[in-house]
Amino acid sequence: MAVLFDTKFNVVDFDINPARIKELKQGFDRTKKVEKEKLLNCQIEFTDNPEKLKEAKVIIITVPTPVDKHNIPDLRPIISATKTVGKYMKKGSIVVYESTVYPGLTEEECVPILQQESGLKWKEDFNVGYSPERVNPGDKNHTIDKIIKVVAGDTPEITEFLAQLYGSVITAGIHRAPNIKTAEAAKVIENTQRDLNIALMNELSIIFNKMGIDTKEVLEAAGTKWNF
Amino acid sequence: MAVLFDTKFNVVDFDINPARIKELKQGFDRTKKVEKEKLLNCQIEFTDNPEKLKEAKVIIITVPTPVDKHNIPDLRPIISATKTVGKYMKKGSIVVYESTVYPGLTEEECVPILQQESGLKWKEDFNVGYSPERVNPGDKNHTIDKIIKVVAGDTPEITEFLAQLYGSVITAGIHRAPNIKTAEAAKVIENTQRDLNIALMNELSIIFNKMGIDTKEVLEAAGTKWNF
Repeated sequence: MAVLFDTKFNVVDFDINPARIKELKQGFDRTKKVEKEKLLNCQIEFTDNPEKLKEAKVIIITVPTPVDKHNIPDLRPIISATKTVGKYMKKGSIVVYESTVYPGLTEEECVPILQQESGLKWKEDFNVGYSPERVNPGDKNHTIDKIIKVVAGDTPEITEFLAQLYGSVITAGIHRAPNIKTAEAAKVIENTQRDLNIALMNELSIIFNKMGIDTKEVLEAAGTKWNF
Repeated sequence: MAVLFDTKFNVVDFDINPARIKELKQGFDRTKKVEKEKLLNCQIEFTDNPEKLKEAKVIIITVPTPVDKHNIPDLRPIISATKTVGKYMKKGSIVVYESTVYPGLTEEECVPILQQESGLKWKEDFNVGYSPERVNPGDKNHTIDKIIKVVAGDTPEITEFLAQLYGSVITAGIHRAPNIKTAEAAKVIENTQRDLNIALMNELSIIFNKMGIDTKEVLEAAGTKWNF
C-alpha cells in the first residue's frame, strides 16, 4: 500500500523493527510482495523513528492481529501501535486501520487510546477510518491495486475523503461501507468464510483420497457451477 | 429437463404418482418451475405406466434423495426407481442418474440392481451415466438451460454421447467429468459447500443482529471481494 501511495503522495513508512527498515532501505521485502527494483526506486521514507509520524496527515495502521493458542485475538500489536500513533499524531490527523479486527474495535477500543495518548478530541481534532487489507497472501493475480477497496470513516465526510484517497491509486474501485463497524464485520467474515471453505476442502480431500477420487478433478467439475 | 429435451426429442415423463401425472397433463407443475402454457403446448407423453419405459433409449432418473432425521440418506426412492427401470428397460438402454448421491452409488449400488431386474449385462447390454441436477430451487435467473451441465458415463463413449445429448439443449455448455464417481462427488460437495455457507451466514446474522450491525450491508461490502 505504501509503494502504491508513493506514486501520488509523500509517504513515510514506519516500523518499530529497525532490521525490517534496514532491509527495506536496501530493497529487500521479506514478505516477498514488492520487488527490489520498486523499493530502490521509490520515494518512501523508511524509518523506525516515531517522530516522523508527526508529519503525516493520514496514518494507516497495518499491524498483524493474530490469535493465541486459545483462539483469543492478541491485541497487543494493535494497542501498542495505537499508543505510538496517539503519542505522535497531530491535530487534524486521520488514523486508518487496515488490520483484521472484530466489529467495534476501532471506535470502542482504539479511539479512547488515541484520545488519551494525544490529548486530542475524537471527531473534533482527529478522525478515524477503517479499510481492510484484502490481499490473499501468495496470490500473484489479485494484487492490491486490482482488489476493490472497502472504506469507512467515522463521518460521511471522512468516508468520502478515504474513498478519494484510496481511489486515486486503486484502479479496481472503492466500496463505501455505511460505517466502520460494517467494514470491520465485512473483513472478519471474508476471512472466516475463506477459512471455513479451505477447511471444508481439506476435509473433503482426505475423504476423496480414501475413496480413490481425485480432489482436483472434483473441484474442476464443481467449479463449473456459478456459485461454487 | 423433460420440457427442455422435448424441443429436440420424443420424451416420456414417467411418475409413480398418478395425481402428479394428472396435474402435468392439465398444465399444472406443483414445483412451480414450468408455466402452464409450456406444459400444455409440449409434446411430452406424461404417464404413470412403467411399460412406457420400454420405448426409451435413454432413461433419466431424477427422484429425490432426502436424509432421515439421523442425516442418513434415504435411498428408498432411488432404489425403488432403479428396480422399476431395471424391470422395463430394454437392451441398449442408457440409464442416467441426476439425483444427489454419495460417490459410488450409481455404479456400486444401482448397477447391480439394474442387472438383476433386467437380466442384462452392464457395459454389454446397457450403460449408465451420471449428470447432476444443479438448479437451486427458487432461483429464477439460473434456469436449467443456463447452467453448465456436468456429465459422466461409464465409458468414454457414453460420456461423449451424454455430452452431445445434453449439449443439444443446454446452451451454457457441458463439462465432461473423467468418471461417474467424480461427477457424483462434485454434486455432493456443491450441496455441502452451499449448505455450509448458508449456515455460516445464518449464524453470523444472529451475531450481527445482537451487535446492531446490518447483515445485508456487511454482505454487500464483503461481496466486493472476488472470492467471497
